[in-house]
Amino acid sequence: MSDRPHPDGVTEQLDRDAPAPLHAQVSEQIRAKILSAEWPPHYRLRSEPELAADLGISRGTLRRALATLIRDGLLVQVRGRGTFVTSTTIEPSIAQKLTTLSEDFARQGVPYTTEVVSQRVMAAPPPLATLLDLSPGQSVLRLERLRSASTGPVAWLVNYVRTDLTPGLEQADLADRSLFGLLENEYGLKITTGRRTFTATAATDRIATALGVAEGFPLLYLEQITYLHDGRAIEYSDVWIHSERMRVTSLLSRR
Amino acid sequence: MSDRPHPDGVTEQLDRDAPAPLHAQVSEQIRAKILSAEWPPHYRLRSEPELAADLGISRGTLRRALATLIRDGLLVQVRGRGTFVTSTTIEPSIAQKLTTLSEDFARQGVPYTTEVVSQRVMAAPPPLATLLDLSPGQSVLRLERLRSASTGPVAWLVNYVRTDLTPGLEQADLADRSLFGLLENEYGLKITTGRRTFTATAATDRIATALGVAEGFPLLYLEQITYLHDGRAIEYSDVWIHSERMRVTSLLSRR
Repeated sequence: MSDRPHPDGVTEQLDRDAPAPLHAQVSEQIRAKILSAEWPPHYRLRSEPELAADLGISRGTLRRALATLIRDGLLVQVRGRGTFVTSTTIEPSIAQKLTTLSEDFARQGVPYTTEVVSQRVMAAPPPLATLLDLSPGQSVLRLERLRSASTGPVAWLVNYVRTDLTPGLEQADLADRSLFGLLENEYGLKITTGRRTFTATAATDRIATALGVAEGFPLLYLEQITYLHDGRAIEYSDVWIHSERMRVTSLLSRR
Repeated sequence: MSDRPHPDGVTEQLDRDAPAPLHAQVSEQIRAKILSAEWPPHYRLRSEPELAADLGISRGTLRRALATLIRDGLLVQVRGRGTFVTSTTIEPSIAQKLTTLSEDFARQGVPYTTEVVSQRVMAAPPPLATLLDLSPGQSVLRLERLRSASTGPVAWLVNYVRTDLTPGLEQADLADRSLFGLLENEYGLKITTGRRTFTATAATDRIATALGVAEGFPLLYLEQITYLHDGRAIEYSDVWIHSERMRVTSLLSRR
């Protein structure tokens, strides 16, 4: 990529005699470029060898600088694709992989908390019974949770899980555990596929309050059905996402 | 899957002496179930052998019935996953594959039209120049289009394409052609990867008018950067999607 222009050179001088180590000086320079939007969201940094050569620093020093910004959520590295500016929103890849938000947050090192708002067994309403292959009147566990990151609430999650396959799930602690992890590890269920649909919707009263937005605020709305290896549906969920705090990103290949 | 209950049996009697052929009777029964939401959006139909056995019809007849509903956009078939109720919205898989809306529409047999609203060369504004690896002042083609399906306008698309790699693109007819198809087939550009981000946003004045919604209406908002095989960025786009007419669906695997 030697023919690429260099709009993103880190040109400020580094002070090798300053008390701050070089990697910290570099990470502060890059941070300033991101916060000033000179490097806008989605911007892909030039390769490590190019950046390191530009700065006259070792790749090890550059990596330490980048690691700081990755930890702070300003950059994200994708194997084989490069390093990207993420902006200040969280970017899970839930449109592309059957991972859960909690798994994505954990993988990216995003600190989060989960509040269980309600957790109760109920008769599946008719459309849901059909979606989950249940007879009318069979029960599901309904789970309402609020997930928050350091910026505030990011998602309101409502899951409906078949109780015939998950005895005792109504007692489980789902504040600190991934629902998928629990289904897989405690119940031995083999989750294999899922179908997720993304739309936009206006925040209604209760969800607006939970997410700290005005009624009518545009939310990203995700519907999901999850299937086991034998084709049975195990779970249906509705998720409302605060789209200024979290956006869903896909890295895609053409062929 | 013989242990699955049968909430979805097509139990109405078929009239083998009626003038309407059997496959048409079956497709009308299934259509009624979808329109009444007895089979809700996302519902996965039982397997063809199960459904055909239930109805006492051949799989060939069942397939003709399903083909009608697929053509009408009420069902979608996914290889190896089954047949799903799509509801009345279009469901492109643009979160999962680097296809364009026009390619997805064509593949699904969704009729659509594209209106080119503007198509002009301009100097790339600074953040965009950075995203596209351009020097400040280099030019891009800005393309504004409105895409409509039979239900009405579904997406407002704004693309910015590097003109140094696409001489003459400002003259191209982009009402009837896929932009990616043109870049690949006319310019020989090898599009390999892309990055897409999905959020929700409130419709602003001009876009609200184009999509036929009120200002503030929640839209699905997609940002995209597309890369060539040599790592150069070729195109950036903003797409606003009428989320009641089109929603983005991903079929995902856990492992």
